[in-house]
Amino acid sequence: MPRKPKKAKQMGKIRVIPLGGLGEIGKNMTVIEYENDMIVVDCGLGFPDDDMPGIDLVIPDITYLENNKDKLRGVLLTHGHEDHIGAVPYMLRSINPPVYGTPLSLGIIKNKLEEHILPWKPDLRPVKPGDTVRLGAIEVEFIHVNHSIADACALAIHTPLGTLIHTGDFKLDTSPIDGEMMDIVRLGELGREGVLMLMCESTNAERPGHTPSERKVGASLEYIFSTHKQKRIIIATFSSNVYRVQQIIDTSARHGRKVAITGRSMLNIVSTAMELGYMKVPAGVIVDINEIKRYKPGELTLITTGSQGEPMSALYRMAFSDHSQVTLGANDLVVLSASAIPGNEKLVGRIINELSKNEVEVLHDAVVEVHVSGHACQEELKLMQALTKPKYFMPIHGESRHLLANRDLAKYMGMNPQNIFISEIGKVLEIDENGARFNGTVPAGKILVDGYGVGDVGNIVLRDRRHLAQDGLIVVVATVDTDERMILSGPDIVSRGFVYVREAEELMEEARQIAYEALMDTLEYSDQVDRMQLKKCVKDDLTKFLYAKTKRKPMILPVIMNV
Amino acid sequence: MPRKPKKAKQMGKIRVIPLGGLGEIGKNMTVIEYENDMIVVDCGLGFPDDDMPGIDLVIPDITYLENNKDKLRGVLLTHGHEDHIGAVPYMLRSINPPVYGTPLSLGIIKNKLEEHILPWKPDLRPVKPGDTVRLGAIEVEFIHVNHSIADACALAIHTPLGTLIHTGDFKLDTSPIDGEMMDIVRLGELGREGVLMLMCESTNAERPGHTPSERKVGASLEYIFSTHKQKRIIIATFSSNVYRVQQIIDTSARHGRKVAITGRSMLNIVSTAMELGYMKVPAGVIVDINEIKRYKPGELTLITTGSQGEPMSALYRMAFSDHSQVTLGANDLVVLSASAIPGNEKLVGRIINELSKNEVEVLHDAVVEVHVSGHACQEELKLMQALTKPKYFMPIHGESRHLLANRDLAKYMGMNPQNIFISEIGKVLEIDENGARFNGTVPAGKILVDGYGVGDVGNIVLRDRRHLAQDGLIVVVATVDTDERMILSGPDIVSRGFVYVREAEELMEEARQIAYEALMDTLEYSDQVDRMQLKKCVKDDLTKFLYAKTKRKPMILPVIMNV
Repeated sequence: MPRKPKKAKQMGKIRVIPLGGLGEIGKNMTVIEYENDMIVVDCGLGFPDDDMPGIDLVIPDITYLENNKDKLRGVLLTHGHEDHIGAVPYMLRSINPPVYGTPLSLGIIKNKLEEHILPWKPDLRPVKPGDTVRLGAIEVEFIHVNHSIADACALAIHTPLGTLIHTGDFKLDTSPIDGEMMDIVRLGELGREGVLMLMCESTNAERPGHTPSERKVGASLEYIFSTHKQKRIIIATFSSNVYRVQQIIDTSARHGRKVAITGRSMLNIVSTAMELGYMKVPAGVIVDINEIKRYKPGELTLITTGSQGEPMSALYRMAFSDHSQVTLGANDLVVLSASAIPGNEKLVGRIINELSKNEVEVLHDAVVEVHVSGHACQEELKLMQALTKPKYFMPIHGESRHLLANRDLAKYMGMNPQNIFISEIGKVLEIDENGARFNGTVPAGKILVDGYGVGDVGNIVLRDRRHLAQDGLIVVVATVDTDERMILSGPDIVSRGFVYVREAEELMEEARQIAYEALMDTLEYSDQVDRMQLKKCVKDDLTKFLYAKTKRKPMILPVIMNV
Repeated sequence: MPRKPKKAKQMGKIRVIPLGGLGEIGKNMTVIEYENDMIVVDCGLGFPDDDMPGIDLVIPDITYLENNKDKLRGVLLTHGHEDHIGAVPYMLRSINPPVYGTPLSLGIIKNKLEEHILPWKPDLRPVKPGDTVRLGAIEVEFIHVNHSIADACALAIHTPLGTLIHTGDFKLDTSPIDGEMMDIVRLGELGREGVLMLMCESTNAERPGHTPSERKVGASLEYIFSTHKQKRIIIATFSSNVYRVQQIIDTSARHGRKVAITGRSMLNIVSTAMELGYMKVPAGVIVDINEIKRYKPGELTLITTGSQGEPMSALYRMAFSDHSQVTLGANDLVVLSASAIPGNEKLVGRIINELSKNEVEVLHDAVVEVHVSGHACQEELKLMQALTKPKYFMPIHGESRHLLANRDLAKYMGMNPQNIFISEIGKVLEIDENGARFNGTVPAGKILVDGYGVGDVGNIVLRDRRHLAQDGLIVVVATVDTDERMILSGPDIVSRGFVYVREAEELMEEARQIAYEALMDTLEYSDQVDRMQLKKCVKDDLTKFLYAKTKRKPMILPVIMNV
């Protein structure tokens, strides 16, 4: 199928607009437009930073999509990881474009959608690698790649002006578990035909060499199972890593072990993957977690969530003796088949310590190779460049350091630095017959999800939460009569998170006195008295007093009632 | 000097009581008693966990020392790191024992003491490696070891019952910067004479092999300087690593660069180390940070704090364009000569990203070997066992995982597991002629320091801070007349850190209504009405309402005034 850009007289413009995933890890989302047709690649969520207390999730701002929903022909999902599909249910609250993805991605979304009430029936359209979807003037071709979840795809986005390649997340695995290497032939064909722009993931762009094959983990598992025949083996891994789970089940079966699965997301994804045929489980191997008492330690493997040390996960509850079916001890081996995502190191460490205390043996990726990355290292990124030979290049999926490392690789491969575009969310890259250039921005940003609330927690609320967490709170309550210039009741002081009040009675009494004097001074000596002014005086005087006494700045909330 | 335990008729008891550093990283402190004589090894601080918002430092609970100050003969410092000496100023608020340490440790303490007001003059007594100090029936010998700060010592604690060895922090460096290898000869002599118990640090007990020599960093620096002749080089490292700073200065001098130093703790420690002769700086190499404009990039090295990404550090301020003398750009190379302490990965990453954005080249320990650990890896720990051949063994300095890994090494070396004691803070190990055993506990724990307050923030305050951070706060204010059973004013609602109120007016109005109804119901239908009851009803009803509406549980603070 020849797909050369047909040079017409008046070629249109392509616009490429990342709405997430650049300058950050997660919430991947990219808009691509050709004239009046718009498509979106991925719709992922991100996790909150340390300075976002109480926030559950972060999703991309999709105002731009809402404002252009008439042009939006479809959302295309590269694979089923949270950072690529997790925001789909939130997007579907306001717009309802067709959503294309491989069956596993859509299966995971269907699970999620059960927890959301939507104003319409979602339009989920399954595709398989090799398929092409026409979306207005744009045709999108799904190309098989390797990754740490089944059925991951890169996309070839064919426009009248030329072809863009979006790699999604990928690695090159010549010996993957599902038997198919990434389709480098198709990528090479596209390269020969001419690729206008490559958008390539950057997660591991700082890491030299090649990412090891998923099969390496199989060899480590075999070694572990052979050397721990008497122990029950508990393996924690990412629930979405279907291949990993498959390898654990296969190794268990080979060693005559039954397998029990625990953790909600693990149960969900494994059942979805089995239904859709992504996993093959020998008959009789899986047993219910409630039946594990019937087996000796050496006859049993548990597969669990919690590899990131998440405090409510099954592994955490096992470690802290809070799991209803599993208690761990000296007969158990726990394998952490994952690496800690930056920021989770301490949580993972807490579990390892607790397990150690209880004489549970622990193996993790610093000791045995029980985890491999799902992302391309430098040699694979260079291969992608060599295959696709793009005219323009935009590194995607990564913090600044990763994007720039990916840029440096492209330069090393001989690319003209002027053809490399380091973009950011909301920034519009425009491509036409005359070249490519940044041109303007669209609304983009982080929308915070806290409980049922989407977007109702912003910078002011977060600033208050951080302030409250830092030094706590003091509420000053008083009733005054501004006409008579009298205090009728109070001031009373209530504090939370400031000091342990029973042992700081003197300090609190002094604070009350300061508040009293601030009120009296204002009532007596000001020309005009209003509540604002009274509040301000109390707040200023108390802030100064408490900082001098304690070097802390609690939030001070004066509540002044005027009768 | 023969020091064989002189077997008397009635030998006394030794008691070994860790007050910090076991089951945790930091706040190292160990009490050792022989009958009526007590000594303390180290007096360090720890850093707060993520679940301690607003806390600056954590220090050991020294109630046990305060209760036994008449027996306390001295505090012995193994070396000058914060986690070994940082709590000395706090200890000196309530007790004033003699404090023994090498000059650098005491120099660093003197710097600190300038910020503290004490009821007495501290009694700081300098010692040098090889010295022995008599403290009642106990004699303590200081033995030179290698570590990432100068003048680190292990201690041989000679008692009438036998000799205990406390390693402090150590590594074996056959080619250290200051020319002296750890005194393995003396340790071996003590082993030959008979060591009753070894207390050995465990930080790197999970790591196989040997810790590389500090000199390796010198080779990396030489390579970096040779390949970046045109760039200004900014190196961030731990201020206490005097050897590292020395190597940076030497390499700079060799390459004809001037060196400027920035960051308060870096300036403090470098000047202390230079005064005391721990560092030798060629004349004319150091220049003031205010004069750096006079030099070209290739003529200048900056040494700075901030290798852990600390938000107020000099490097952080440079990265975020907030440093008054230094602005970074494409002519700069930043070298992070440190590894991120667990928990700091994200902070360090934030700096790397910001620098990358500004086209600053960054080298860190994942790319070049610009950092080596100061702690013994497995082969060195095994060497310590082989040299000292102790009868009993207590792993110290580490989380549970590290202590247990150190235990496993001792077992591997042939030690009887029954002679290995995994202790915890406050736990008393008793040793006498008949053996060793745990026997009881003493008060021990974490004291939190927040601003000027020491110990006034406890679990309740922290729980409130975490609660406030999670979902914010709602204050409900009303004035009632419980006799007339009327609401006189309010209820009014003030919120902070909950929702952005301007966009949630409806919700807040509903909440006000719920509070109103809760008050009215109670006032109208209860047999007896008091403020407690009114508060409880408001709190319960609002909590239920808000959780149903938002899935959040803000702290609800009803302030009910009764007229």
